[in-house]
Amino acid sequence: MIVILERGVREGLIARVVERLTAAGARVQRLDGERVTLAASGGAGPWDDLAGMPGVASVLENSSATPLVAGETPSQPPPAPKNPGHEERGFRVGERRIGQGELFVVAGPCSVEDPETMERIACAVAAAGAAGLRAGAFKPRSSPYAFQGMGEEGLAVAHRAARNHGLLLVSEVMDATQIPVAVRYVDILQVGARNMYNTPLLRELGRARKPVLLKRGLSATIEEWLSAAEYVVSAGNPRVILCERGIRTFETATRNTLDLNALPVLRERSRLPVVVDPSHGTGRRAYVRAMARAAVAAGADGLLLEVHVEPDRAFSDAAQTVDIPTLEAIVREARVLLRALAEVGA
Amino acid sequence: MIVILERGVREGLIARVVERLTAAGARVQRLDGERVTLAASGGAGPWDDLAGMPGVASVLENSSATPLVAGETPSQPPPAPKNPGHEERGFRVGERRIGQGELFVVAGPCSVEDPETMERIACAVAAAGAAGLRAGAFKPRSSPYAFQGMGEEGLAVAHRAARNHGLLLVSEVMDATQIPVAVRYVDILQVGARNMYNTPLLRELGRARKPVLLKRGLSATIEEWLSAAEYVVSAGNPRVILCERGIRTFETATRNTLDLNALPVLRERSRLPVVVDPSHGTGRRAYVRAMARAAVAAGADGLLLEVHVEPDRAFSDAAQTVDIPTLEAIVREARVLLRALAEVGA
Amino acid sequence: MIVILERGVREGLIARVVERLTAAGARVQRLDGERVTLAASGGAGPWDDLAGMPGVASVLENSSATPLVAGETPSQPPPAPKNPGHEERGFRVGERRIGQGELFVVAGPCSVEDPETMERIACAVAAAGAAGLRAGAFKPRSSPYAFQGMGEEGLAVAHRAARNHGLLLVSEVMDATQIPVAVRYVDILQVGARNMYNTPLLRELGRARKPVLLKRGLSATIEEWLSAAEYVVSAGNPRVILCERGIRTFETATRNTLDLNALPVLRERSRLPVVVDPSHGTGRRAYVRAMARAAVAAGADGLLLEVHVEPDRAFSDAAQTVDIPTLEAIVREARVLLRALAEVGA
Amino acid sequence: MIVILERGVREGLIARVVERLTAAGARVQRLDGERVTLAASGGAGPWDDLAGMPGVASVLENSSATPLVAGETPSQPPPAPKNPGHEERGFRVGERRIGQGELFVVAGPCSVEDPETMERIACAVAAAGAAGLRAGAFKPRSSPYAFQGMGEEGLAVAHRAARNHGLLLVSEVMDATQIPVAVRYVDILQVGARNMYNTPLLRELGRARKPVLLKRGLSATIEEWLSAAEYVVSAGNPRVILCERGIRTFETATRNTLDLNALPVLRERSRLPVVVDPSHGTGRRAYVRAMARAAVAAGADGLLLEVHVEPDRAFSDAAQTVDIPTLEAIVREARVLLRALAEVGA
Repeated sequence: MIVILERGVREGLIARVVERLTAAGARVQRLDGERVTLAASGGAGPWDDLAGMPGVASVLENSSATPLVAGETPSQPPPAPKNPGHEERGFRVGERRIGQGELFVVAGPCSVEDPETMERIACAVAAAGAAGLRAGAFKPRSSPYAFQGMGEEGLAVAHRAARNHGLLLVSEVMDATQIPVAVRYVDILQVGARNMYNTPLLRELGRARKPVLLKRGLSATIEEWLSAAEYVVSAGNPRVILCERGIRTFETATRNTLDLNALPVLRERSRLPVVVDPSHGTGRRAYVRAMARAAVAAGADGLLLEVHVEPDRAFSDAAQTVDIPTLEAIVREARVLLRALAEVGA
Repeated sequence: MIVILERGVREGLIARVVERLTAAGARVQRLDGERVTLAASGGAGPWDDLAGMPGVASVLENSSATPLVAGETPSQPPPAPKNPGHEERGFRVGERRIGQGELFVVAGPCSVEDPETMERIACAVAAAGAAGLRAGAFKPRSSPYAFQGMGEEGLAVAHRAARNHGLLLVSEVMDATQIPVAVRYVDILQVGARNMYNTPLLRELGRARKPVLLKRGLSATIEEWLSAAEYVVSAGNPRVILCERGIRTFETATRNTLDLNALPVLRERSRLPVVVDPSHGTGRRAYVRAMARAAVAAGADGLLLEVHVEPDRAFSDAAQTVDIPTLEAIVREARVLLRALAEVGA
Repeated sequence: MIVILERGVREGLIARVVERLTAAGARVQRLDGERVTLAASGGAGPWDDLAGMPGVASVLENSSATPLVAGETPSQPPPAPKNPGHEERGFRVGERRIGQGELFVVAGPCSVEDPETMERIACAVAAAGAAGLRAGAFKPRSSPYAFQGMGEEGLAVAHRAARNHGLLLVSEVMDATQIPVAVRYVDILQVGARNMYNTPLLRELGRARKPVLLKRGLSATIEEWLSAAEYVVSAGNPRVILCERGIRTFETATRNTLDLNALPVLRERSRLPVVVDPSHGTGRRAYVRAMARAAVAAGADGLLLEVHVEPDRAFSDAAQTVDIPTLEAIVREARVLLRALAEVGA
Repeated sequence: MIVILERGVREGLIARVVERLTAAGARVQRLDGERVTLAASGGAGPWDDLAGMPGVASVLENSSATPLVAGETPSQPPPAPKNPGHEERGFRVGERRIGQGELFVVAGPCSVEDPETMERIACAVAAAGAAGLRAGAFKPRSSPYAFQGMGEEGLAVAHRAARNHGLLLVSEVMDATQIPVAVRYVDILQVGARNMYNTPLLRELGRARKPVLLKRGLSATIEEWLSAAEYVVSAGNPRVILCERGIRTFETATRNTLDLNALPVLRERSRLPVVVDPSHGTGRRAYVRAMARAAVAAGADGLLLEVHVEPDRAFSDAAQTVDIPTLEAIVREARVLLRALAEVGA
C-alpha cells in the first residue's frame, strides 16, 4: 500500500499516519521527495480511514510494484493490462506533447561539437521536423583516459544552437552534482544506460522540474527499468520518458540487440511514453532507418537518433551516426506509417 | 573459391578438376548434392582456365563465407553490401511469390488438430488472405514423455485442410528419415530452431525439391544462420526462406527476444527471403500484433503466426496463439504499411 | 506417472495397461525403446493395482519431469534434493568406473590426425593417466565448405591408437545413420552441443549398447539438458555422461562462459556422472589448467580435454589445445585436490 | 601514452608538458586525482625527453588500455601476458594481506542487523578464520518502496561488531556523498554491481585512503571491469580488489552464472587481487560451498560470503545465505585446497 501525503505536510501529521500503520502491524518505509510518500507492507486492515486522515492526499491499495508508473489511481486501482487510451498517456514538454499521438523526434551528435557545427546540425535537425536536439556534454566513457566531454561549456554551446532553432535540448547527467548545472541549459535530463540502477541519481532527478529521459540498462529487465522510473516518479517528478536502446546479447553483427518487444510490454504496464534509439540499438548506420520504421510501427512515441552533417567526422560513435538526408527519410517514413496506421485504427 | 560442376557430370571429369586444384597447392573439399561442388582453399593461381574445363558450370572466386546465400555470381562477385533490388531476391512457391514485394503470410495451429478443427482454421486463414497453413505433425518436445505429434496421420489431415482452401502447407521435419514422408504432403519443409545446426538434415534438405523454411537457432548468430542456409543451397536447393523467431536472453517478460535487427543485416548479406514469427518471438498473444507490424516495417517478406479458432483450446502454445480477428487485423495492417512505404519509396 | 513395462512384453498386455489408464481418464504417451514405457498424465487414481498387472515392471508415481535421470525408484520416489551417496551415482565403462570417486579423464585432438600422430598422442595421453582418448571423425562444422572429418577411416585410425594404449575411445555421432558405423570403433558415443536438442538422435542412442556422452547445448538450460538425457535413458540406455562445455554469453575474452554452477545443480537433480570440458569452456589454452582445477573442486567426475603433442599444428581448435606437459599437470593437480578434499570429507 | 606527474606539481609545469605534447600533434586528456595524469593519443614522437621534464614522475609508452591495473611500469612496459609472481600482486589491508597467497575471507549478513545479532555473527565469523565482516547499510534496491538500509546508524553497529572481533569492515557506498560518512566506519569501500559503470563515484573513490572492493557489473565484460578499476587507480588509489559475483544469462536454475573463467583472464591482465562471491554468483545456499571450492582452485585470492547465525531469519537474501557451520567448512576446505596446490606448485 502506498500512502501519498499532501505537499508541505507537517511532520506531526506524518508521524500520526506512520503510527496508525505500525499500530496495525505494517512495516513502513518513508520516501522524501517533492511530497512525502509512505510505503506500507504487511499489517491487518481495514484501512478505509486512511484516506480521510489529515495530510493524506491519496491511498493506493493492492498496488502493483510500480503503481505510479502504471498509472494507478485511488478510485481506479490496478488497471486491467491493456493499452490505455492516448488521453491517459504522456505529457507536455515545452510546447510539444509526447506520448499522445504526435511523433517526438530527438536528433543530434553523440557529443557536443564546435559552435559552428552545432549550429549547422541544429538547423538541419529542425528543418527535418524534429522536436529536440541531443548532444552529450558529460560523457560516460569506458576508459578514464578517453575524452570525458566538454562539460558546462558544451551545454552552453548546445543550448544556443537549440534555442536558435526552437528545439528542446536533451543531454545526459551522470551524477547528482551535475543536475544544478544542467537544468540551466537542458530541457530534458537524460539518464544513460550505465546509470539506470543509480538510485541516488534517480531520486535527485525526482526533485528536478524538468522531464527525465531514462535509458534502459545494458542488461536490465523491463521490470527493473520500470522500477527505476518509479524511483523518479515517487520522488515527485511524473514526467519520465523511457528509452529502449538495445540490450546485450551474444550477437556480434550488431552492437546491441534492439528489443522492440519492450514496446507492447510497456504499453501494457505503464502510462509513460517510450522512445526508441536505433542508433545505439544497432550500432551501424546502415540499419538505423529500417529499425526506426519498426519502432514506430510497434508503437514508439518517438525516436532518439545520432545525426551529423558529416557523420564520418563526428567526435564519437561515427559508425552509428546517420546523415541529414537519412534523418529526413526517417521522419518522412515515420509520419507515413503513423498516418496509415491511424486510418485503420491500429 | 567455389567450383560448381554441371549436373550429372562424370566422375572422371570431377577427378580432373580436383587434380588441377591440388596440383596448384589447394586443399579441396567435395560436396555431393544435386550437383557436385568443390570448395578449394589455398594454392597459387591464376585460375582463369578453370571456368573452361569440361564439367565446370561456374567458378566463384574471392567469395564470402556464404557465397550462394549472398547471391554471388561468376560475373558479378561479392555484391556491395546494400539492399539488392527486388528482382534479385526471392522465388516462387507454387503460384505464390516470396521475397518480391508480396507479403507471404503463413498461419495456423502449433500442432495439427482434429480434421474438423483444421478445416475451420484453414478456412479462416485463407479468408484472411494468408498464403500458407502451418501445423506441426512431428513435434520437437523437451520431454520424452510429452506428446510427440500425430506424425504422418497429422500431415494427411493438414494437407487436406490446406488443399481445400488453396493454401500451401508448411510443416516441420526433425530428421532425414521424415523427409520422404513429409514431401508427399507438405509444400514447404520447416527446420525448427532446435535443428538449425543439424547439418546432416540440412544437406538432405538440399536434395529435396521443395522450399525450406529455416528457423534461426535459439542462440545462433546471424552468421551461423546464413551458414546453415548455405548448407541447404550448396547441396542443390536454392529455395530457402529464413525465419527470425527470437533469441534467448535474460529478459523474462517475454519468452524470447525478437531480434528485428536481423532484418536489415540479412538484407545486406543475403538474397534469401526472410519471414518473422512474432508468436515464438514474444510468447504472449497480446504482443503479437504490434510485433507483426514492426516486422513488416523493418522489411520482413512475410509472417509466420500461431493462430486458432479457439486459442485457449489449442493443443500447444496456447499462450502465444492469436484468434482469427487478430490475424485479420495483422494482415490488414501489414498491407496498409507496405502500401504506405511503397508510396514513399522506402 | 511413468509405467515401465517388462522387456519383450507382448502387445496384448501393453494394450491392457493402456486401457486401464485411459479408462481412468489419463492421457497416455507410449515410448518404444529397449523397453516400452508409458507416460500417463491426468486421470483419477487410485493406481495401486497397476504395479501388479501382468507385464508391468515398475511404476513411478508423483515423478519429477526427469524421473529416470533423477534416479527415482518405485519404492523410494522423488529423492530429497541432496547429494546422493556415491554408490547411487555413476556406472562402469569397460574396466573403468565413472561417477564413483575415480577421476575420469578423456583427452586427445579435436579431429582425428594421421595414424602416426594419433599413436604419439594416445601414448602420451595414456601415460598421463587418462582413461579415454577423444578424436572427432564426424565433425559438425559451421561452413559446408569446411573439412567435415575423416569419417569411418578416421574412426579406424583412432580406434587402433586407443586400443594400443588401453584407452576407451570417445567420438561424436551427428546422425542416427552414423551410429551403426561408430559402435564398431567407439566406446563412448558423444552428442555434440549442436545436437543436444536432436531428439530423434537421442532416442536412437537410447537403443545403443554403449554409453553416451551428452554435451550441453550452446544456450541450453540445465533443465533442458536433463530432459535430453531423459530421452536417452527412457529409450533404454541408462549410461549417460553429462558434459558441461560452456554457454553463450556477451563475454568476448573467452569463447564460452564455463558454467560450473551446473555441477552442484546437477548433483542435486540427477544421478548421472558429469564431466567438464574446459577447452571449449574457455577457448584459450592458457585458461584450461585453472578451470580444470575449478571443475574438479566443484565436484566434476571427470574432464574432457583437447590435447596434442604439437598443439600449434593441430588440424582444428589449436587455440584451445594444450600440450602434453599441461595435461600431466592437470591430472596431477586434480588428483591432489581430490585426495585433499577426501581427507576433509568434502 | 600516459604521463604521470609528481604529487603537488605546479600548474605552470603541467601546462608545459601539455604544450610539449600538443605541439607534437597529440590530443591530451587531463585527469585530476591524487596526482595529475595526462593521457596523450596521436602525435609524432620521439618522446624520450618527456621523462626528464620537470614535474614528470613517469611515462608509460605503448601502454595497454588499462596500464595501471595491468601493473605496467616505465622501465618494464606491457608485461607479457602470463601469471605474474605473487610478490607483484596484491597489497596490505590493515594487518592483513590480500593477493599474496593468504586467503582473504569476508563474511556476514546481506544487511546490517540489530546490534546483538551483528555481535553474534561477527564472533562466529572471526572464529571461523575470516579477515573481514560484510554488512550493507546503504542498500541498492530495485524498488523505491523497499527498505533502503539503516544508513550511518547501521555502519556504526557493524563497525562496533567488527572491532570487537578484530575484523575489517566491508560495506557498500552508492554515491560520492556517502564516502565521507562511510570512511569513518568502514575499512574497505564496496562498489556494487549496479554501480560498476558509475564513473563519478569511481573517481571519487580514487581519492579515498581506503581500499575499494569493485564488484563486476551485471553484464559487464572483463575489459569494462578492468577499465572501471583503472578509473579508481588513475585517480590515485592503487588498492582495488576485484569481485566476481556472477553475470546475467538465460539460465534460471541459478540467480546468476558465476564466471570463474574470469579468474585466469584477470591473472593474465591485471595485478589486482580478485575475490569471488559465490552467494550472489549462485543465489542458492545449497550451491555456495561447491562454488567456493571451485573459486579457490581456480586462483581466487579470497571469498565474499553471505552468512548468518540464523539464515532463514536474515533481513534480505535469505535464500543465498549460509549458516556458520557451512562457513567453517568452506574455510577449512579452502585452506586444504590451497595447501595441496602449493605442494604441487600450482
